[in-house]
Amino acid sequence: METVSVTKAFGGTQGVYRHASTATGTDMTFSVYVPPHAEGMKLPVVWYLSGLTCTHANVTEKGEFRAACAELGLIFVAPDTSPRGEDVPDDPDGAWDFGLGAGFYVDATEKPFAANYHMWTYVTEELPGLVAAEFPADMARQSIMGHSMGGHGALTIGLTCPDRYKAVSAFAPIVAPSQVPWGQKALGGYLGDDRVAWGAHDAVALIAGGARVPELLVDQGDADGFLDQLKPDLLADACAEAGIALTLRMQPGYDHSYYFISTFLGDHLRWHAERLG
Amino acid sequence: METVSVTKAFGGTQGVYRHASTATGTDMTFSVYVPPHAEGMKLPVVWYLSGLTCTHANVTEKGEFRAACAELGLIFVAPDTSPRGEDVPDDPDGAWDFGLGAGFYVDATEKPFAANYHMWTYVTEELPGLVAAEFPADMARQSIMGHSMGGHGALTIGLTCPDRYKAVSAFAPIVAPSQVPWGQKALGGYLGDDRVAWGAHDAVALIAGGARVPELLVDQGDADGFLDQLKPDLLADACAEAGIALTLRMQPGYDHSYYFISTFLGDHLRWHAERLG
Repeated sequence: METVSVTKAFGGTQGVYRHASTATGTDMTFSVYVPPHAEGMKLPVVWYLSGLTCTHANVTEKGEFRAACAELGLIFVAPDTSPRGEDVPDDPDGAWDFGLGAGFYVDATEKPFAANYHMWTYVTEELPGLVAAEFPADMARQSIMGHSMGGHGALTIGLTCPDRYKAVSAFAPIVAPSQVPWGQKALGGYLGDDRVAWGAHDAVALIAGGARVPELLVDQGDADGFLDQLKPDLLADACAEAGIALTLRMQPGYDHSYYFISTFLGDHLRWHAERLG
Repeated sequence: METVSVTKAFGGTQGVYRHASTATGTDMTFSVYVPPHAEGMKLPVVWYLSGLTCTHANVTEKGEFRAACAELGLIFVAPDTSPRGEDVPDDPDGAWDFGLGAGFYVDATEKPFAANYHMWTYVTEELPGLVAAEFPADMARQSIMGHSMGGHGALTIGLTCPDRYKAVSAFAPIVAPSQVPWGQKALGGYLGDDRVAWGAHDAVALIAGGARVPELLVDQGDADGFLDQLKPDLLADACAEAGIALTLRMQPGYDHSYYFISTFLGDHLRWHAERLG
């Protein structure tokens, strides 16, 4: 692991790091904030998965999470959203909703993406191993959150590994990718036409299929221009049916941007901290 | 005044605006955060002056000021750092420490800069008039702060207009531009060789010449790579001599970046709010 930069912030350390990923076959860059803490102490880890077009940098610069992480003693990890590099295949038309910056947190099985687009394995296995080895992380206390495509990632990963993540929340998540254009393009492109494979990467389908977490927290701006891709009502219906305690807060006047996320990220971190112990 | 964007954040409104400036003869862009407030209420105004290479956008995206402004009921105004446009003369070598993004908060008298570089008049007269007209601002309650070159601006403007600004603070300010390379280049380029004119734009020289404010708050990272341009000790000496109550906090391990600024901006806003009443 190579250190790109380390900067003091809110008494702790905001770092950016790079490593050669075996999951993606590329170099991957990610950021980690380590709050001030006593030497030798191990701290709970919050995973933040970013949305379409983002890298680690968007939330790192605009998320306003460090004050709360410093107060609550939380490590905050922000991975990239796809493999990167000149040899990594991108959307054939260069669109921003597929390929680079749009890995959708799946392990692709379709050519040419299957060679590099293994973001599920990267985020759930490889990067946790690296974080455990390199940071003062208590891996028995992890939680996960994300925004938009990253909200989709947080929900599907949280629902698939309910014992690992003590809290799962999202900002404006894509809750049912199988049912909306962004998701249909991505799941089709990465996983092919087999809709059974899609179901493992669709929060609403996972819940319908029996996946369970005790509770979920979701904030959604009602002025979000992408509501037709996000469809929070489908998550509300699925959770009601399944008996999952969903707190869905429709936030009046908020859009899809980091101005929205930063407003509520502190709330989410407090909610996570209560569940991380 | 044209609205570039308006986004809800922390219960208030983060706006970006553009207008044709008579002071600079160019279009100027600035940002204003208006916190949640009762209709008809007038709110105090905090001016934030940015550093070299910045526009309004840096602090707006990375400053993490909105939570505190929402809590304290403060309007936060972030002007640009120079006139902009293809017809605006820049540093002849394209350097980043003079010309575009580096107006140094003076009214230039030297050709070719005298035509546009009137940032003193812009920040102290024209933009306050526009803010008073367009926002719920109580102009009897203003304060000023800034970073680096903008810290220089905040100190010199605050010292020149002590009755207008109820609080003056800075992050890593250039306190004595007459004595350091950045300042000598800028003051020489904009104001010519007459060092008497420079004295009106040098906080340490202003204090030596009798300018007074009751108190100043300055945060300075001790890992700042630009300490040789900033020279906080010169401000400490001048304030001690003059009987100005300077709180100079040398912050261990902090650099010159927005990770440093965002860590302490909430503190500064609370200090300003106490003095704005």
